[in-house]
Amino acid sequence: MSKVASTQMPRLALGKTYARVRRATETLAAGLSQEDQTIQSMEDASPTKWHLAHTTWFFETVILQAFSKGYSPFNANYAYLFNSYYESLGPRHARPRRGMLTRPSVDEVLEYRRCVDKAMWSLVDALSPDQQAQIGPLIELGLNHEQQHQELILTDIKHAFSLNPLLPAYAAPRPTVVETAPPMEWIRFGGGLQQVGDAGAGFAFDNERPRHQVLLSPYRLASRLVTCGEYQAFITDGGYKRPEFWLSDGFALAQREGWNAPLYWDDEGQIFTLRGPRPRSKDEPVAHVSFYEAAAYAAWAGKRLPTEFEWEHAASLLPLEGNFLDTDILHPRVAVSWQGTLQQMFGDLWEWTRSSYDPYPRYRPFDGTLAEYNGKFMIGQIVLRGGSCATPADHIRASYRNFFPPAARWQFSGIRLADDS
Amino acid sequence: MSKVASTQMPRLALGKTYARVRRATETLAAGLSQEDQTIQSMEDASPTKWHLAHTTWFFETVILQAFSKGYSPFNANYAYLFNSYYESLGPRHARPRRGMLTRPSVDEVLEYRRCVDKAMWSLVDALSPDQQAQIGPLIELGLNHEQQHQELILTDIKHAFSLNPLLPAYAAPRPTVVETAPPMEWIRFGGGLQQVGDAGAGFAFDNERPRHQVLLSPYRLASRLVTCGEYQAFITDGGYKRPEFWLSDGFALAQREGWNAPLYWDDEGQIFTLRGPRPRSKDEPVAHVSFYEAAAYAAWAGKRLPTEFEWEHAASLLPLEGNFLDTDILHPRVAVSWQGTLQQMFGDLWEWTRSSYDPYPRYRPFDGTLAEYNGKFMIGQIVLRGGSCATPADHIRASYRNFFPPAARWQFSGIRLADDS
Amino acid sequence: MSKVASTQMPRLALGKTYARVRRATETLAAGLSQEDQTIQSMEDASPTKWHLAHTTWFFETVILQAFSKGYSPFNANYAYLFNSYYESLGPRHARPRRGMLTRPSVDEVLEYRRCVDKAMWSLVDALSPDQQAQIGPLIELGLNHEQQHQELILTDIKHAFSLNPLLPAYAAPRPTVVETAPPMEWIRFGGGLQQVGDAGAGFAFDNERPRHQVLLSPYRLASRLVTCGEYQAFITDGGYKRPEFWLSDGFALAQREGWNAPLYWDDEGQIFTLRGPRPRSKDEPVAHVSFYEAAAYAAWAGKRLPTEFEWEHAASLLPLEGNFLDTDILHPRVAVSWQGTLQQMFGDLWEWTRSSYDPYPRYRPFDGTLAEYNGKFMIGQIVLRGGSCATPADHIRASYRNFFPPAARWQFSGIRLADDS
Amino acid sequence: MSKVASTQMPRLALGKTYARVRRATETLAAGLSQEDQTIQSMEDASPTKWHLAHTTWFFETVILQAFSKGYSPFNANYAYLFNSYYESLGPRHARPRRGMLTRPSVDEVLEYRRCVDKAMWSLVDALSPDQQAQIGPLIELGLNHEQQHQELILTDIKHAFSLNPLLPAYAAPRPTVVETAPPMEWIRFGGGLQQVGDAGAGFAFDNERPRHQVLLSPYRLASRLVTCGEYQAFITDGGYKRPEFWLSDGFALAQREGWNAPLYWDDEGQIFTLRGPRPRSKDEPVAHVSFYEAAAYAAWAGKRLPTEFEWEHAASLLPLEGNFLDTDILHPRVAVSWQGTLQQMFGDLWEWTRSSYDPYPRYRPFDGTLAEYNGKFMIGQIVLRGGSCATPADHIRASYRNFFPPAARWQFSGIRLADDS
Repeated sequence: MSKVASTQMPRLALGKTYARVRRATETLAAGLSQEDQTIQSMEDASPTKWHLAHTTWFFETVILQAFSKGYSPFNANYAYLFNSYYESLGPRHARPRRGMLTRPSVDEVLEYRRCVDKAMWSLVDALSPDQQAQIGPLIELGLNHEQQHQELILTDIKHAFSLNPLLPAYAAPRPTVVETAPPMEWIRFGGGLQQVGDAGAGFAFDNERPRHQVLLSPYRLASRLVTCGEYQAFITDGGYKRPEFWLSDGFALAQREGWNAPLYWDDEGQIFTLRGPRPRSKDEPVAHVSFYEAAAYAAWAGKRLPTEFEWEHAASLLPLEGNFLDTDILHPRVAVSWQGTLQQMFGDLWEWTRSSYDPYPRYRPFDGTLAEYNGKFMIGQIVLRGGSCATPADHIRASYRNFFPPAARWQFSGIRLADDS
Repeated sequence: MSKVASTQMPRLALGKTYARVRRATETLAAGLSQEDQTIQSMEDASPTKWHLAHTTWFFETVILQAFSKGYSPFNANYAYLFNSYYESLGPRHARPRRGMLTRPSVDEVLEYRRCVDKAMWSLVDALSPDQQAQIGPLIELGLNHEQQHQELILTDIKHAFSLNPLLPAYAAPRPTVVETAPPMEWIRFGGGLQQVGDAGAGFAFDNERPRHQVLLSPYRLASRLVTCGEYQAFITDGGYKRPEFWLSDGFALAQREGWNAPLYWDDEGQIFTLRGPRPRSKDEPVAHVSFYEAAAYAAWAGKRLPTEFEWEHAASLLPLEGNFLDTDILHPRVAVSWQGTLQQMFGDLWEWTRSSYDPYPRYRPFDGTLAEYNGKFMIGQIVLRGGSCATPADHIRASYRNFFPPAARWQFSGIRLADDS
Repeated sequence: MSKVASTQMPRLALGKTYARVRRATETLAAGLSQEDQTIQSMEDASPTKWHLAHTTWFFETVILQAFSKGYSPFNANYAYLFNSYYESLGPRHARPRRGMLTRPSVDEVLEYRRCVDKAMWSLVDALSPDQQAQIGPLIELGLNHEQQHQELILTDIKHAFSLNPLLPAYAAPRPTVVETAPPMEWIRFGGGLQQVGDAGAGFAFDNERPRHQVLLSPYRLASRLVTCGEYQAFITDGGYKRPEFWLSDGFALAQREGWNAPLYWDDEGQIFTLRGPRPRSKDEPVAHVSFYEAAAYAAWAGKRLPTEFEWEHAASLLPLEGNFLDTDILHPRVAVSWQGTLQQMFGDLWEWTRSSYDPYPRYRPFDGTLAEYNGKFMIGQIVLRGGSCATPADHIRASYRNFFPPAARWQFSGIRLADDS
Repeated sequence: MSKVASTQMPRLALGKTYARVRRATETLAAGLSQEDQTIQSMEDASPTKWHLAHTTWFFETVILQAFSKGYSPFNANYAYLFNSYYESLGPRHARPRRGMLTRPSVDEVLEYRRCVDKAMWSLVDALSPDQQAQIGPLIELGLNHEQQHQELILTDIKHAFSLNPLLPAYAAPRPTVVETAPPMEWIRFGGGLQQVGDAGAGFAFDNERPRHQVLLSPYRLASRLVTCGEYQAFITDGGYKRPEFWLSDGFALAQREGWNAPLYWDDEGQIFTLRGPRPRSKDEPVAHVSFYEAAAYAAWAGKRLPTEFEWEHAASLLPLEGNFLDTDILHPRVAVSWQGTLQQMFGDLWEWTRSSYDPYPRYRPFDGTLAEYNGKFMIGQIVLRGGSCATPADHIRASYRNFFPPAARWQFSGIRLADDS
């Protein structure tokens, strides 16, 4: 087991960050009606309201109940309703039934948030240095956890809205600026023994640890993400019907599901975005593809996907900038023309790697209940890297490992090509 | 094809009835939050909001668009969203996705109702006698259709609430009065050639026609519905584990689903009602059983279920009174002690018959689109008779044929025993 | 409960019939390899070998173990392996796994048959008149049971062979004689109170009893079965795509399964028969349609299917002749031109009726274990009448009620139209 | 793409090996009846007869049709019937329907083998040195392919027999010798940069290439496989009910499927083997566990599974000896007491590693059609190493990568523990 230890944020900063992150979540939900916040569009997704409550339950359970003397839960039923998957914390409301929870209402959930926030502020205010060393990292974990759910709020409501024939917009449409993507260039890396994993400069999840050496062969990365126009050429060339490009499971799934384009594309050249439907641009990055589609595209293009370590090594040399949630664009941007440099590594779209989500050598899960946070999902999933337009800017880093099953398409996921050098 | 003809209600009465029925629907929804009105708990059920809109769409489509010059639809998308199953009216929103419609909002749907109501009132006001002969029956059909959905609003929200671990109450709980059910007595009927089906005195559905003769053997009916206590004896005697009482499909289903009691019973003696959970009384009628359970109970009791014609012949001799929606009890009542008389035939619970839902001899569906109202469902369903505590009093009659698949449990369905004489 | 009583066959006749029926079953299997006899093509079907063993188990269990002193079962495991659905006789091998029984081998099963036959002959030889009154009817039941499985051996192997791309023939192909079906004529019946059900002249199943009166309206029956050419016109007219002709469940199923023609039709005008694939004739009766297709065809033709009692009343006036298993044609024949008479009522194809398989008034199942023979299946099934080209001639009668779910297509089932008069 | 090149076997040796391998396959099937060879017990498994034919089709398609002038296929249908998964070779008989192929018969399949063998011998006999350089490696591939199917013949028939309540034995039972497993010891390895993958000394699959360096941390391997007794302690300690030991998907699957022991264990202490059911020994290696169970066991034991490279590095230091198919034991043996040495690395049981089946750096699939041999399965699978008691001895090597989904249990799969050093 490993401690949730990290560089320790000063108490004041902790309180401020807590307030900022918590408020940001509520801001994301503010434009949604009570009805919007209640439904669950598929088993993988959760209602907005549930995200609001679950992240609050996390602080209540991990911090307040453990460390705040005399704290009594806001509502005894919530431990059952809003536990996501922690077996060690007892039975839970069945995941596929989260959309049945018309009660508690959105208003009650917001009241729950206020109540827990108040208790959290009292706690943080009174932290002794010793306590801060112990509790501070857990609060940081809770805030990072909440940021993960901020992204899910967006991807889940996008999916839900896409099933409504009215195709509602989450945010107001914006005038489209016509932009042209630069040609794809190839950036060369020398390989060798490289350090990967959490460098220890701030918060990190257990799955990024321990930092360790990996051996890389020389490789090249594409300078930008694959565009809709490039992906359209794959489709036009029969990509979805030609098994020679596909992993066997992926081809079978695509046939069974009738996939013939990325999620959220329609047959009339429109794309569904968080700002409603609009014409697709050939220059914007292709989004909402599964790993299977990403890998098939790469095979068709005569290239491959990068391994997570190739990606990380390259990313670790770049500034941590990009089109994150903070730009409020809510969609990947067209790449710009910076000759010979890697673009869009951070933000815009999560990038599928050719790496199964396996534990690092000598990996130790967090202690106690939090052992369930990451470790038990290390099977059948693929690593994605870099964050997206729905990821808070201060949530991401080069060593960050996101993971989804190879069939998942409702995340902001895209394609960066790689090649041997 | 058959016309939707019936005794013609005077214009004034028609307007008043329209207003009353439409208002009643909204009253049923009034206590539910927007969130409650949005969700769909299973494919068989629909959101409250959808019921509110669909019944309105029915008037808009069948009456206003056909007969109201210059009427233009409130919203062009609603024909797609709120068509239930009319193939002749074009494509429809998929039934299992009704719960995805967070938009239009409840408020927009209520606005839709107001708008259609206004147009309907104008139309009714200006009806010439000729027009009334033509349109009046269709309006009556629309109102009867709406009353069917009033019952579904209640049974569907009951089901949805039952899946919420908080077990919300649809209506305020009431103090329980302890009552004792009288012993079951047996009422004898002579059989012979009897008239069944719509006698023509008022509105009737096409499935009740034509009135025709049937040949009945002498038979007996139980004086009242089977109680929870009686049903508990069946359970205690191993009823759910003993295949000798069951139809083969029913036993397989009960095993597969793990049924060991009626729907809405828990293991601690509680029953879930529209007024929330409360202790079960042994004297109240057993409700929410499938046809399979009703038939198994009857076999265990050494009796059988009545045919729909045995039931109808007996019911046609009784006054049309009972515990309907209008009593606002929202649950079946304990039978009272009236010696030697049939009780609870109307209201309280729909009674499963031992009759498949087949067309009557020389049955003709309604004309045009409305042919789809009943006829296409005449397969794989069982007839239920008599109405329930969720049925409006003026909606029911002795010849009324309700129908559900033999596995359905979420309706207010109960058991009346019959026997050969 | 009702006794399996019937007119009592003399002892000698009983022995002869036993020998004949049992031998006939083995003859049906004789042309099949051990491999052919072992497989199960779907849950509804069973391996040939299983039929051979199950019918034998029936005699062993119902007769020998009950009445033959000192008889000990051939193999203690067979009670488990070859019980079909008798809950009262203990646990059974799961139906979908009958194709896993490579052991016992075909040879062992034939040895089992020989051993049981020997014991049966000894028993029959020594029957006292009293014993014969008791046991004789059970033996007759066993023989009728075996004849039902003779038909299933043929329909099940036909289905299995149809899934083999080599399309093997069960029996040698025969030269096709070109024949022309006569025009469809309409035969009129007066209706009124009519007797239906077992008239008591010989063996009958419990589901044909008791004989009772039914009230029929005047009606007409088509003189012959619907032909492939007539059915093709329905297809050509878009029959499989036009919901207005279909029961709702049927249309949904046809869409889901991609049905666009009867079972065993291919796209090149071929039909698969027990004598292998061959060109379809427009004059031969259309076979292997579900009830849903039969009802949709009838609606398209502006007619309906007969009720089982309309069919029975008409059939009871005809001689019991037709194209049965005994002709060894193994396929329905083209109708011949006999003006103004009903043809093909017996044999050729089972005829779907518009009657759900419900119990007759005062129906009592057979006593004891045999209560499970028919009664527990009286839900969700449709009555078929008249026997087919795979039915032994001495197995059928006007009151005989066969039954299958409305979706079943692998039986020799066809369409006779009816109309009101 | 990569050539199927390897050290070139002399022509004479090639012919001899061909004869030996092909005969070995037939020997494996010889004790099975035609019925046994026909059935398919689940989608993952295939009939014996199908294995016999498919391996033959492989030579016919890859060698004879490509290189043998004037060769015409034995039967034009076989390309459709016996193609396993090669999309580039056209449509195929659906995998789940392989058990429907009662025709061709076992005898016809054996005739097919003889015919192809004859053509192969002629071809090999006349190979020029140039031809041998080209064709020889493909023949070697065909033989290795056939050996893979030899193992599947055994694991598939074991599964089929396990579904027969008679529990037939594939081979004659043998007297059990009581043996005691030595204590588990821990063998230490220093890690560092190590070479893995095909060293080029003989035949290898494309998935073992290219040979490359990996960086290993110091580690330890258990000296022997986990025994049934040790695994029983895990069960007794509630292993199957305690989520803390399990990967999330694995726990959900185990609950859904009701797993509470390895495959082929019953509740009475028996184990089902290819030599029939017999009492379980606590000392024999636990077999037929899924990856999920192996990983849960390791977690319970406070250890982990080795990575495929840890395993390979250790194995590469050992002689290639073990309990393979050639011993004809057909079951894993109890470990023997050799102090301080690794045992059972080769043979006995395939060992689940903690490595997803990903491509090696610069992996190139075989050329042409054979590209589909391995590459397209590199998703969602786990690497197993070392071969089993059903693997031919000359088929295995230290670099050999077998792969199955984490849920698979019907292979001879077991558990070797690893730990950090």
